[in-house]
Amino acid sequence: MGLSADFFERLNRWQAVVNEGLARFVPKLSGQASRLTEAMHYSLMAGGKRLRPILVFAGAEAVGGDPEKLLPVACAIECIHTYSLIHDDLPAMDNDDFRRGKPTCHKAFDEATAILAGDALLTHAFRLLAHEELEKTFPPERLFRLWRLISEAAGLYGMVAGQMADLLAEGKPVSPEELYFIHHHKTAALIRASVLAGAILAGAEARKEKNLSDYGWKIGHAFQIVDDILDLVGDEKTLGKPVGSDLAKKKATYPALFGLEGAYEKARHLLTEALESLSSFGSEADFLRDIAYYVLERKL
Amino acid sequence: MGLSADFFERLNRWQAVVNEGLARFVPKLSGQASRLTEAMHYSLMAGGKRLRPILVFAGAEAVGGDPEKLLPVACAIECIHTYSLIHDDLPAMDNDDFRRGKPTCHKAFDEATAILAGDALLTHAFRLLAHEELEKTFPPERLFRLWRLISEAAGLYGMVAGQMADLLAEGKPVSPEELYFIHHHKTAALIRASVLAGAILAGAEARKEKNLSDYGWKIGHAFQIVDDILDLVGDEKTLGKPVGSDLAKKKATYPALFGLEGAYEKARHLLTEALESLSSFGSEADFLRDIAYYVLERKL
Repeated sequence: MGLSADFFERLNRWQAVVNEGLARFVPKLSGQASRLTEAMHYSLMAGGKRLRPILVFAGAEAVGGDPEKLLPVACAIECIHTYSLIHDDLPAMDNDDFRRGKPTCHKAFDEATAILAGDALLTHAFRLLAHEELEKTFPPERLFRLWRLISEAAGLYGMVAGQMADLLAEGKPVSPEELYFIHHHKTAALIRASVLAGAILAGAEARKEKNLSDYGWKIGHAFQIVDDILDLVGDEKTLGKPVGSDLAKKKATYPALFGLEGAYEKARHLLTEALESLSSFGSEADFLRDIAYYVLERKL
Repeated sequence: MGLSADFFERLNRWQAVVNEGLARFVPKLSGQASRLTEAMHYSLMAGGKRLRPILVFAGAEAVGGDPEKLLPVACAIECIHTYSLIHDDLPAMDNDDFRRGKPTCHKAFDEATAILAGDALLTHAFRLLAHEELEKTFPPERLFRLWRLISEAAGLYGMVAGQMADLLAEGKPVSPEELYFIHHHKTAALIRASVLAGAILAGAEARKEKNLSDYGWKIGHAFQIVDDILDLVGDEKTLGKPVGSDLAKKKATYPALFGLEGAYEKARHLLTEALESLSSFGSEADFLRDIAYYVLERKL
Protein backbone atom coordinates (compact mmCIF):
# COMPACT_ATOMS: atom_id res chain seq x y z
CA MET A 1 0.00 0.00 0.00
CA GLY A 2 1.27 3.46 -0.84
CA LEU A 3 0.39 6.40 1.38
CA SER A 4 -2.12 8.83 -0.12
CA ALA A 5 -1.57 12.50 -0.90
CA ASP A 6 -4.30 13.10 1.69
CA PHE A 7 -2.12 11.59 4.37
CA PHE A 8 0.83 13.83 3.57
CA GLU A 9 -1.41 16.87 3.44
CA ARG A 10 -2.72 16.00 6.86
CA LEU A 11 0.81 15.39 8.14
CA ASN A 12 1.89 18.79 6.83
CA ARG A 13 -1.10 20.49 8.39
CA TRP A 14 -0.31 19.03 11.80
CA GLN A 15 3.37 19.85 11.39
CA ALA A 16 2.38 23.47 10.85
CA VAL A 17 0.23 23.38 13.99
CA VAL A 18 3.17 22.04 16.00
CA ASN A 19 5.51 24.67 14.58
CA GLU A 20 3.10 27.45 15.50
CA GLY A 21 2.66 25.90 18.93
CA LEU A 22 6.40 25.83 19.53
CA ALA A 23 6.70 29.46 18.50
CA ARG A 24 3.89 30.31 20.91
CA PHE A 25 4.84 28.13 23.87
CA VAL A 26 8.63 28.43 23.88
CA PRO A 27 9.60 32.04 24.62
CA LYS A 28 12.37 34.05 23.05
CA LEU A 29 14.04 36.02 25.80
CA SER A 30 16.16 39.10 25.38
CA GLY A 31 19.22 40.28 27.29
CA GLN A 32 21.41 37.86 29.22
CA ALA A 33 19.18 34.87 28.49
CA SER A 34 18.82 35.52 24.76
CA ARG A 35 21.59 33.15 23.65
CA LEU A 36 19.92 30.34 25.58
CA THR A 37 16.53 30.68 23.91
CA GLU A 38 18.17 31.28 20.51
CA ALA A 39 19.91 27.93 20.79
CA MET A 40 16.67 26.26 21.90
CA HIS A 41 14.76 27.64 18.90
CA TYR A 42 17.63 26.84 16.53
CA SER A 43 17.31 23.15 17.35
CA LEU A 44 13.52 23.16 17.70
CA MET A 45 13.18 24.64 14.23
CA ALA A 46 15.79 22.49 12.51
CA GLY A 47 13.19 20.67 10.44
CA GLY A 48 12.01 17.74 12.52
CA LYS A 49 9.21 15.48 11.30
CA ARG A 50 7.16 16.23 14.44
CA LEU A 51 6.23 12.55 14.63
CA ARG A 52 5.86 12.46 18.42
CA PRO A 53 3.60 15.53 18.79
CA ILE A 54 1.50 14.35 15.86
CA LEU A 55 1.10 11.01 17.61
CA VAL A 56 -0.27 12.90 20.62
CA PHE A 57 -2.97 14.37 18.36
CA ALA A 58 -3.65 11.09 16.59
CA GLY A 59 -3.87 9.18 19.88
CA ALA A 60 -6.51 11.61 21.16
CA GLU A 61 -8.44 11.56 17.89
CA ALA A 62 -8.59 7.75 17.91
CA VAL A 63 -10.64 7.86 21.12
CA GLY A 64 -12.81 10.84 20.21
CA GLY A 65 -10.75 13.58 21.84
CA ASP A 66 -10.10 17.08 20.51
CA PRO A 67 -6.47 17.20 19.35
CA GLU A 68 -6.23 21.01 19.44
CA LYS A 69 -6.58 20.99 23.23
CA LEU A 70 -3.43 18.91 23.49
CA LEU A 71 -1.10 21.42 21.86
CA PRO A 72 0.90 22.22 25.04
CA VAL A 73 1.43 18.47 25.56
CA ALA A 74 2.47 17.93 21.94
CA CYS A 75 4.94 20.82 22.20
CA ALA A 76 6.29 19.54 25.51
CA ILE A 77 7.08 16.17 23.97
CA GLU A 78 8.79 17.79 20.99
CA CYS A 79 10.89 19.83 23.46
CA ILE A 80 11.93 16.60 25.18
CA HIS A 81 12.76 14.95 21.85
CA THR A 82 14.80 17.97 20.73
CA TYR A 83 16.73 18.15 24.02
CA SER A 84 17.61 14.47 23.63
CA LEU A 85 18.98 15.08 20.12
CA ILE A 86 21.08 18.05 21.29
CA HIS A 87 22.63 16.09 24.14
CA ASP A 88 23.09 12.92 22.04
CA ASP A 89 25.00 14.92 19.42
CA LEU A 90 27.52 16.31 21.95
CA PRO A 91 31.22 15.42 21.52
CA ALA A 92 31.17 13.32 24.70
CA MET A 93 28.19 11.36 23.36
CA ASP A 94 27.70 10.57 19.64
CA ASN A 95 29.86 13.51 18.50
CA ASP A 96 27.77 14.38 15.45
CA ASP A 97 28.41 17.59 13.51
CA PHE A 98 25.31 17.55 11.32
CA ARG A 99 21.66 16.77 11.76
CA ARG A 100 18.95 17.38 9.18
CA GLY A 101 21.50 19.13 6.98
CA LYS A 102 22.38 21.76 9.57
CA PRO A 103 25.24 22.01 12.04
CA THR A 104 24.29 20.45 15.36
CA CYS A 105 23.60 22.80 18.28
CA HIS A 106 27.09 22.59 19.79
CA LYS A 107 28.58 23.30 16.35
CA ALA A 108 26.29 26.26 15.63
CA PHE A 109 26.76 27.65 19.17
CA ASP A 110 29.18 25.90 21.52
CA GLU A 111 29.21 22.92 23.83
CA ALA A 112 28.20 24.76 27.00
CA THR A 113 25.31 26.48 25.24
CA ALA A 114 24.16 23.15 23.79
CA ILE A 115 24.19 21.45 27.18
CA LEU A 116 22.20 24.33 28.69
CA ALA A 117 19.77 24.57 25.76
CA GLY A 118 19.03 20.87 26.24
CA ASP A 119 18.56 21.32 29.98
CA ALA A 120 16.25 24.29 29.41
CA LEU A 121 14.17 22.42 26.80
CA LEU A 122 13.71 19.47 29.14
CA THR A 123 12.72 21.72 32.05
CA HIS A 124 10.43 23.81 29.88
CA ALA A 125 8.66 20.65 28.70
CA PHE A 126 7.45 20.13 32.26
CA ARG A 127 6.41 23.76 32.49
CA LEU A 128 4.22 23.11 29.44
CA LEU A 129 2.79 19.91 30.96
CA ALA A 130 1.53 22.10 33.82
CA HIS A 131 0.15 24.71 31.44
CA GLU A 132 -2.81 26.75 32.65
CA GLU A 133 -4.84 25.73 29.57
CA LEU A 134 -4.41 22.05 30.45
CA GLU A 135 -5.40 22.65 34.07
CA LYS A 136 -8.59 24.38 32.88
CA THR A 137 -9.44 21.68 30.35
CA PHE A 138 -8.66 18.30 31.87
CA PRO A 139 -9.50 16.52 35.15
CA PRO A 140 -6.49 16.64 37.50
CA GLU A 141 -6.18 12.86 37.81
CA ARG A 142 -5.55 12.63 34.06
CA LEU A 143 -2.86 15.28 34.30
CA PHE A 144 -1.17 13.44 37.17
CA ARG A 145 -1.09 10.30 35.03
CA LEU A 146 0.31 12.33 32.14
CA TRP A 147 3.12 13.69 34.31
CA ARG A 148 4.07 10.26 35.53
CA LEU A 149 3.88 8.82 32.01
CA ILE A 150 6.15 11.43 30.44
CA SER A 151 8.67 11.71 33.28
CA GLU A 152 9.05 7.92 33.32
CA ALA A 153 9.30 7.58 29.53
CA ALA A 154 11.91 10.33 29.27
CA GLY A 155 14.06 9.54 32.29
CA LEU A 156 15.78 6.69 34.05
CA TYR A 157 12.97 4.24 33.25
CA GLY A 158 13.06 5.21 29.59
CA MET A 159 15.00 7.35 27.18
CA VAL A 160 17.99 8.33 29.31
CA ALA A 161 18.53 4.71 30.37
CA GLY A 162 18.37 3.69 26.70
CA GLN A 163 20.96 6.28 25.69
CA MET A 164 23.26 5.10 28.49
CA ALA A 165 22.90 1.47 27.35
CA ASP A 166 23.45 2.51 23.74
CA LEU A 167 26.76 4.21 24.60
CA LEU A 168 27.90 1.30 26.76
CA ALA A 169 27.18 -1.15 23.92
CA GLU A 170 29.42 0.65 21.40
CA GLY A 171 32.11 -1.64 20.05
CA LYS A 172 30.92 -4.61 22.08
CA PRO A 173 29.13 -7.80 21.07
CA VAL A 174 25.46 -7.31 21.94
CA SER A 175 22.73 -9.93 22.38
CA PRO A 176 19.29 -9.51 20.79
CA GLU A 177 17.90 -8.95 24.30
CA GLU A 178 20.37 -6.16 24.99
CA LEU A 179 19.58 -4.53 21.65
CA TYR A 180 15.87 -4.80 22.45
CA PHE A 181 16.50 -3.03 25.77
CA ILE A 182 18.28 -0.18 23.98
CA HIS A 183 15.55 0.37 21.37
CA HIS A 184 12.78 -0.09 23.91
CA HIS A 185 14.13 2.59 26.21
CA LYS A 186 15.98 4.96 23.87
CA THR A 187 13.24 5.34 21.26
CA ALA A 188 10.08 3.32 21.79
CA ALA A 189 9.33 4.61 25.31
CA LEU A 190 8.78 8.24 24.26
CA ILE A 191 6.94 7.31 21.05
CA ARG A 192 4.59 5.04 22.99
CA ALA A 193 4.15 7.75 25.65
CA SER A 194 3.17 10.24 22.93
CA VAL A 195 0.26 8.13 21.65
CA LEU A 196 -0.75 7.22 25.17
CA ALA A 197 -0.63 10.85 26.37
CA GLY A 198 -3.30 11.75 23.82
CA ALA A 199 -5.39 8.75 24.77
CA ILE A 200 -5.16 9.36 28.53
CA LEU A 201 -6.07 13.05 28.34
CA ALA A 202 -8.96 12.30 25.99
CA GLY A 203 -10.28 9.85 28.59
CA ALA A 204 -9.86 6.58 26.69
CA GLU A 205 -11.42 3.50 28.26
CA ALA A 206 -8.90 1.01 29.68
CA ARG A 207 -9.04 -1.49 26.81
CA LYS A 208 -8.48 1.15 24.13
CA GLU A 209 -5.73 2.68 26.17
CA LYS A 210 -4.03 -0.72 26.26
CA ASN A 211 -4.44 -1.10 22.48
CA LEU A 212 -2.90 2.30 21.85
CA SER A 213 -0.07 1.57 24.24
CA ASP A 214 0.67 -1.66 22.31
CA TYR A 215 0.50 0.24 19.03
CA GLY A 216 2.96 2.80 20.41
CA TRP A 217 5.49 0.19 21.50
CA LYS A 218 5.35 -1.55 18.11
CA ILE A 219 5.79 1.54 15.95
CA GLY A 220 8.42 2.81 18.40
CA HIS A 221 10.55 -0.27 17.83
CA ALA A 222 9.85 -0.19 14.08
CA PHE A 223 10.92 3.46 13.99
CA GLN A 224 14.32 2.71 15.50
CA ILE A 225 14.93 -0.28 13.21
CA VAL A 226 14.16 1.89 10.18
CA ASP A 227 16.47 4.55 11.62
CA ASP A 228 19.25 1.99 11.80
CA ILE A 229 18.51 0.85 8.22
CA LEU A 230 18.51 4.43 6.91
CA ASP A 231 21.85 5.07 8.59
CA LEU A 232 23.17 2.23 6.46
CA VAL A 233 21.44 2.62 3.09
CA GLY A 234 19.67 5.97 3.27
CA ASP A 235 20.29 8.99 1.08
CA GLU A 236 22.69 11.48 2.69
CA LYS A 237 21.03 14.45 1.02
CA THR A 238 17.56 13.45 2.22
CA LEU A 239 18.80 12.60 5.71
CA GLY A 240 20.99 15.68 6.01
CA LYS A 241 23.73 13.71 7.74
CA PRO A 242 26.39 11.22 6.70
CA VAL A 243 25.30 7.59 6.42
CA GLY A 244 27.37 4.78 7.88
CA SER A 245 28.01 6.57 11.18
CA ASP A 246 26.56 3.70 13.22
CA LEU A 247 28.99 1.32 11.54
CA ALA A 248 31.91 3.67 12.13
CA LYS A 249 30.99 3.95 15.82
CA LYS A 250 30.33 0.20 16.08
CA LYS A 251 26.84 0.91 17.37
CA ALA A 252 24.49 -1.89 18.31
CA THR A 253 21.87 -2.00 15.51
CA TYR A 254 19.37 -4.43 14.02
CA PRO A 255 21.15 -4.59 10.63
CA ALA A 256 24.42 -5.32 12.43
CA LEU A 257 22.80 -8.16 14.35
CA PHE A 258 20.33 -9.61 11.83
CA GLY A 259 21.50 -8.24 8.46
CA LEU A 260 19.63 -5.72 6.35
CA GLU A 261 16.93 -8.15 5.19
CA GLY A 262 16.47 -9.50 8.71
CA ALA A 263 16.00 -5.96 9.97
CA TYR A 264 13.44 -5.14 7.25
CA GLU A 265 11.61 -8.36 8.06
CA LYS A 266 11.49 -7.43 11.77
CA ALA A 267 10.19 -3.93 10.98
CA ARG A 268 7.46 -5.30 8.69
CA HIS A 269 6.41 -7.75 11.38
CA LEU A 270 6.15 -4.88 13.90
CA LEU A 271 3.99 -2.95 11.43
CA THR A 272 1.60 -5.90 11.19
CA GLU A 273 1.43 -6.12 14.97
CA ALA A 274 0.87 -2.37 15.29
CA LEU A 275 -2.08 -2.58 12.88
CA GLU A 276 -3.47 -5.58 14.78
CA SER A 277 -3.46 -3.53 18.00
CA LEU A 278 -5.89 -1.20 16.25
CA SER A 279 -8.26 -3.95 15.06
CA SER A 280 -11.08 -2.93 17.41
CA PHE A 281 -10.94 0.66 16.15
CA GLY A 282 -12.86 2.03 13.17
CA SER A 283 -11.94 4.83 10.80
CA GLU A 284 -11.12 7.09 13.78
CA ALA A 285 -7.76 5.28 13.90
CA ASP A 286 -7.02 5.55 10.17
CA PHE A 287 -4.48 8.30 10.75
CA LEU A 288 -2.64 6.09 13.23
CA ARG A 289 -2.68 3.27 10.66
CA ASP A 290 -1.22 5.56 8.03
CA ILE A 291 1.42 6.75 10.47
CA ALA A 292 2.46 3.14 11.03
CA TYR A 293 3.03 2.71 7.27
CA TYR A 294 4.82 6.04 7.18
CA VAL A 295 7.20 4.99 9.95
CA LEU A 296 8.18 2.02 7.79
CA GLU A 297 8.30 3.71 4.40
CA ARG A 298 9.92 7.00 5.36
CA LYS A 299 13.22 7.97 3.79
CA LEU A 300 14.03 10.57 6.46
CA MET B 1 24.44 35.93 67.48
CA GLY B 2 25.94 32.48 67.33
CA LEU B 3 23.80 29.57 66.18
CA SER B 4 22.82 27.16 68.95
CA ALA B 5 23.73 23.49 69.23
CA ASP B 6 19.98 22.90 68.97
CA PHE B 7 19.93 24.40 65.49
CA PHE B 8 22.70 22.16 64.23
CA GLU B 9 21.07 19.13 65.78
CA ARG B 10 17.86 20.02 63.98
CA LEU B 11 19.75 20.59 60.73
CA ASN B 12 21.41 17.17 61.07
CA ARG B 13 18.10 15.51 61.78
CA TRP B 14 16.54 16.97 58.64
CA GLN B 15 19.62 16.12 56.60
CA ALA B 16 19.18 12.51 57.67
CA VAL B 17 15.51 12.62 56.63
CA VAL B 18 16.51 13.95 53.19
CA ASN B 19 19.20 11.29 52.79
CA GLU B 20 16.73 8.54 53.65
CA GLY B 21 14.22 10.10 51.26
CA LEU B 22 16.71 10.14 48.42
CA ALA B 23 17.59 6.50 49.04
CA ARG B 24 13.88 5.68 48.98
CA PHE B 25 12.74 7.86 46.08
CA VAL B 26 15.65 7.53 43.65
CA PRO B 27 15.91 3.92 42.48
CA LYS B 28 19.03 1.87 41.93
CA LEU B 29 18.54 -0.09 38.76
CA SER B 30 20.41 -3.21 37.73
CA GLY B 31 21.52 -4.40 34.31
CA GLN B 32 22.02 -2.00 31.43
CA ALA B 33 20.80 1.03 33.39
CA SER B 34 22.90 0.35 36.51
CA ARG B 35 25.75 2.69 35.60
CA LEU B 36 23.27 5.54 35.16
CA THR B 37 21.70 5.21 38.61
CA GLU B 38 25.13 4.59 40.19
CA ALA B 39 26.34 7.93 38.85
CA MET B 40 23.13 9.62 40.05
CA HIS B 41 23.56 8.26 43.58
CA TYR B 42 27.29 9.02 43.57
CA SER B 43 26.55 12.71 43.15
CA LEU B 44 23.40 12.74 45.29
CA MET B 45 25.33 11.23 48.20
CA ALA B 46 28.46 13.38 47.85
CA GLY B 47 27.79 15.21 51.10
CA GLY B 48 25.59 18.17 50.25
CA LYS B 49 24.22 20.44 52.95
CA ARG B 50 20.63 19.71 51.84
CA LEU B 51 19.82 23.40 52.27
CA ARG B 52 17.12 23.50 49.59
CA PRO B 53 15.11 20.46 50.73
CA ILE B 54 15.38 21.63 54.34
CA LEU B 55 13.97 24.99 53.23
CA VAL B 56 10.98 23.11 51.79
CA PHE B 57 10.33 21.65 55.26
CA ALA B 58 10.97 24.94 57.05
CA GLY B 59 8.70 26.86 54.66
CA ALA B 60 5.85 24.46 55.37
CA GLU B 61 6.44 24.53 59.12
CA ALA B 62 6.35 28.32 59.18
CA VAL B 63 2.71 28.24 58.01
CA GLY B 64 1.61 25.28 60.11
CA GLY B 65 2.13 22.51 57.55
CA ASP B 66 3.46 19.01 58.18
CA PRO B 67 7.00 18.87 56.74
CA GLU B 68 7.09 15.07 56.55
CA LYS B 69 4.41 15.08 53.86
CA LEU B 70 6.67 17.14 51.62
CA LEU B 71 9.47 14.61 51.40
CA PRO B 72 9.00 13.81 47.67
CA VAL B 73 9.11 17.55 46.91
CA ALA B 74 12.21 18.07 49.04
CA CYS B 75 13.94 15.16 47.27
CA ALA B 76 12.86 16.44 43.85
CA ILE B 77 14.49 19.81 44.53
CA GLU B 78 17.69 18.16 45.76
CA CYS B 79 17.72 16.10 42.51
CA ILE B 80 17.46 19.34 40.51
CA HIS B 81 20.23 20.96 42.55
CA THR B 82 22.49 17.92 42.12
CA TYR B 83 21.89 17.74 38.35
CA SER B 84 22.84 21.41 38.08
CA LEU B 85 26.12 20.78 39.91
CA ILE B 86 26.97 17.79 37.70
CA HIS B 87 26.37 19.75 34.49
CA ASP B 88 28.11 22.91 35.81
CA ASP B 89 31.22 20.88 36.63
CA LEU B 90 31.54 19.49 33.07
CA PRO B 91 34.67 20.34 31.05
CA ALA B 92 32.62 22.46 28.63
CA MET B 93 31.18 24.44 31.55
CA ASP B 94 33.20 25.22 34.72
CA ASN B 95 35.56 22.25 34.24
CA ASP B 96 35.88 21.38 37.93
CA ASP B 97 37.59 18.16 39.03
CA PHE B 98 36.61 18.22 42.69
CA ARG B 99 33.51 19.03 44.67
CA ARG B 100 33.06 18.45 48.40
CA GLY B 101 36.43 16.66 48.45
CA LYS B 102 35.41 14.03 45.92
CA PRO B 103 36.04 13.77 42.19
CA THR B 104 33.20 15.35 40.23
CA CYS B 105 30.80 13.02 38.41
CA HIS B 106 32.54 13.18 35.04
CA LYS B 107 35.88 12.46 36.75
CA ALA B 108 34.55 9.51 38.76
CA PHE B 109 32.63 8.15 35.73
CA ASP B 110 33.02 9.89 32.37
CA GLU B 111 31.58 12.87 30.57
CA ALA B 112 28.78 11.04 28.77
CA THR B 113 27.66 9.33 31.98
CA ALA B 114 27.73 12.67 33.82
CA ILE B 115 25.59 14.37 31.18
CA LEU B 116 23.08 11.53 31.29
CA ALA B 117 23.08 11.29 35.10
CA GLY B 118 22.22 15.00 35.18
CA ASP B 119 19.49 14.55 32.60
CA ALA B 120 18.04 11.62 34.52
CA LEU B 121 18.11 13.49 37.86
CA LEU B 122 16.29 16.45 36.33
CA THR B 123 13.66 14.22 34.72
CA HIS B 124 13.24 12.15 37.86
CA ALA B 125 12.67 15.32 39.88
CA PHE B 126 9.49 15.90 37.88
CA ARG B 127 8.49 12.26 38.40
CA LEU B 128 8.75 12.91 42.14
CA LEU B 129 6.70 16.11 41.89
CA ALA B 130 3.88 13.95 40.50
CA HIS B 131 4.32 11.34 43.22
CA GLU B 132 1.27 9.31 44.19
CA GLU B 133 1.70 10.33 47.86
CA LEU B 134 1.46 14.00 46.91
CA GLU B 135 -1.61 13.41 44.76
CA LYS B 136 -3.30 11.70 47.72
CA THR B 137 -2.34 14.41 50.21
CA PHE B 138 -2.69 17.79 48.53
CA PRO B 139 -5.41 19.59 46.52
CA PRO B 140 -4.58 19.46 42.80
CA GLU B 141 -4.52 23.23 42.35
CA ARG B 142 -1.66 23.48 44.84
CA LEU B 143 0.27 20.80 42.98
CA PHE B 144 -0.23 22.56 39.65
CA ARG B 145 1.16 25.73 41.21
CA LEU B 146 4.08 23.72 42.57
CA TRP B 147 4.87 22.29 39.12
CA ARG B 148 4.85 25.73 37.55
CA LEU B 149 6.94 27.18 40.37
CA ILE B 150 9.67 24.55 40.12
CA SER B 151 9.80 24.25 36.34
CA GLU B 152 10.11 28.03 36.06
CA ALA B 153 12.72 28.37 38.81
CA ALA B 154 14.88 25.59 37.36
CA GLY B 155 14.61 26.39 33.66
CA LEU B 156 14.85 29.24 31.21
CA TYR B 157 13.20 31.69 33.60
CA GLY B 158 15.60 30.71 36.36
CA MET B 159 18.60 28.53 36.99
CA VAL B 160 19.56 27.56 33.44
CA ALA B 161 19.34 31.19 32.27
CA GLY B 162 21.55 32.18 35.20
CA GLN B 163 24.16 29.58 34.36
CA MET B 164 24.17 30.73 30.73
CA ALA B 165 24.65 34.36 31.81
CA ASP B 166 27.36 33.31 34.26
CA LEU B 167 29.34 31.59 31.49
CA LEU B 168 28.88 34.50 29.09
CA ALA B 169 30.17 36.93 31.73
CA GLU B 170 33.49 35.12 32.24
CA GLY B 171 36.46 37.37 31.57
CA LYS B 172 34.25 40.36 30.76
CA PRO B 173 33.53 43.55 32.67
CA VAL B 174 30.14 43.08 34.34
CA SER B 175 27.79 45.74 35.72
CA PRO B 176 26.14 45.34 39.15
CA GLU B 177 22.83 44.82 37.31
CA GLU B 178 24.27 42.01 35.22
CA LEU B 179 25.77 40.38 38.30
CA TYR B 180 22.40 40.66 40.05
CA PHE B 181 20.76 38.91 37.09
CA ILE B 182 23.25 36.04 37.34
CA HIS B 183 22.80 35.51 41.10
CA HIS B 184 19.06 36.00 40.91
CA HIS B 185 18.62 33.31 38.28
CA LYS B 186 21.51 30.92 38.92
CA THR B 187 21.05 30.56 42.66
CA ALA B 188 18.29 32.60 44.26
CA ALA B 189 15.46 31.33 42.03
CA LEU B 190 15.67 27.70 43.20
CA ILE B 191 16.32 28.64 46.86
CA ARG B 192 13.30 30.94 46.85
CA ALA B 193 11.22 28.24 45.08
CA SER B 194 12.19 25.75 47.81
CA VAL B 195 10.78 27.88 50.66
CA LEU B 196 7.76 28.81 48.60
CA ALA B 197 7.06 25.18 47.60
CA GLY B 198 6.62 24.30 51.26
CA ALA B 199 4.42 27.32 51.85
CA ILE B 200 2.20 26.71 48.82
CA LEU B 201 1.60 23.04 49.56
CA ALA B 202 0.88 23.80 53.21
CA GLY B 203 -1.78 26.26 52.04
CA ALA B 204 -0.24 29.52 53.22
CA GLU B 205 -2.42 32.61 52.98
CA ALA B 206 -1.34 35.09 50.27
CA ARG B 207 0.40 37.57 52.57
CA LYS B 208 2.51 34.94 54.30
CA GLU B 209 3.32 33.39 50.96
CA LYS B 210 4.61 36.76 49.80
CA ASN B 211 6.69 37.14 52.97
CA LEU B 212 8.25 33.73 52.49
CA SER B 213 8.93 34.45 48.83
CA ASP B 214 10.75 37.66 49.85
CA TYR B 215 12.70 35.76 52.49
CA GLY B 216 13.69 33.18 49.86
CA TRP B 217 14.98 35.76 47.41
CA LYS B 218 17.02 37.49 50.11
CA ILE B 219 18.72 34.40 51.48
CA GLY B 220 19.18 33.13 47.93
CA HIS B 221 21.22 36.18 47.01
CA ALA B 222 23.06 36.09 50.35
CA PHE B 223 23.90 32.43 49.74
CA GLN B 224 25.59 33.17 46.42
CA ILE B 225 27.53 36.14 47.79
CA VAL B 226 28.84 33.97 50.63
CA ASP B 227 29.70 31.29 48.04
CA ASP B 228 31.76 33.83 46.12
CA ILE B 229 33.45 34.97 49.35
CA LEU B 230 34.27 31.39 50.39
CA ASP B 231 35.76 30.72 46.97
CA LEU B 232 38.17 33.55 47.75
CA VAL B 233 38.99 33.18 51.46
CA GLY B 234 37.45 29.83 52.46
CA ASP B 235 39.33 26.80 53.77
CA GLU B 236 40.13 24.31 50.99
CA LYS B 237 39.88 21.35 53.36
CA THR B 238 36.45 22.36 54.63
CA LEU B 239 35.19 23.21 51.16
CA GLY B 240 36.67 20.10 49.55
CA LYS B 241 37.71 22.08 46.48
CA PRO B 242 40.44 24.55 45.57
CA VAL B 243 39.80 28.19 46.47
CA GLY B 244 40.49 30.98 44.00
CA SER B 245 38.85 29.19 41.06
CA ASP B 246 36.46 32.08 40.39
CA LEU B 247 39.43 34.44 40.14
CA ALA B 248 41.28 32.07 37.83
CA LYS B 249 38.22 31.81 35.58
CA LYS B 250 37.56 35.55 35.79
CA LYS B 251 34.05 34.86 37.01
CA ALA B 252 31.65 37.68 37.77
CA THR B 253 31.43 37.80 41.60
CA TYR B 254 30.46 40.25 44.34
CA PRO B 255 33.99 40.38 45.82
CA ALA B 256 35.39 41.10 42.33
CA LEU B 257 32.94 43.95 41.88
CA PHE B 258 32.64 45.40 45.39
CA GLY B 259 35.66 44.04 47.23
CA LEU B 260 35.57 41.50 50.07
CA GLU B 261 34.24 43.94 52.68
CA GLY B 262 31.65 45.32 50.25
CA ALA B 263 30.45 41.79 49.57
CA TYR B 264 30.21 40.98 53.32
CA GLU B 265 28.30 44.21 53.85
CA LYS B 266 25.84 43.30 51.08
CA ALA B 267 25.32 39.81 52.51
CA ARG B 268 24.69 41.19 56.02
CA HIS B 269 22.19 43.64 54.59
CA LEU B 270 20.36 40.81 52.83
CA LEU B 271 20.25 38.89 56.12
CA THR B 272 18.58 41.85 57.80
CA GLU B 273 16.04 42.10 54.99
CA ALA B 274 15.38 38.35 55.12
CA LEU B 275 14.64 38.58 58.85
CA GLU B 276 12.38 41.59 58.27
CA SER B 277 10.33 39.56 55.79
CA LEU B 278 9.55 37.24 58.69
CA SER B 279 8.52 40.01 61.10
CA SER B 280 4.85 39.02 61.10
CA PHE B 281 5.72 35.42 62.01
CA GLY B 282 6.12 34.08 65.53
CA SER B 283 8.30 31.26 66.78
CA GLU B 284 7.04 28.99 63.97
CA ALA B 285 9.57 30.78 61.71
CA ASP B 286 12.51 30.50 64.13
CA PHE B 287 14.06 27.73 62.08
CA LEU B 288 13.92 29.94 58.97
CA ARG B 289 15.56 32.75 60.96
CA ASP B 290 18.34 30.43 62.10
CA ILE B 291 18.81 29.22 58.51
CA ALA B 292 19.29 32.83 57.39
CA TYR B 293 22.11 33.25 59.94
CA TYR B 294 23.52 29.90 58.89
CA VAL B 295 23.61 30.94 55.23
CA LEU B 296 25.77 33.89 56.26
CA GLU B 297 28.00 32.19 58.82
CA ARG B 298 28.63 28.89 57.06
CA LYS B 299 32.17 27.89 56.20
CA LEU B 300 31.06 25.28 53.64
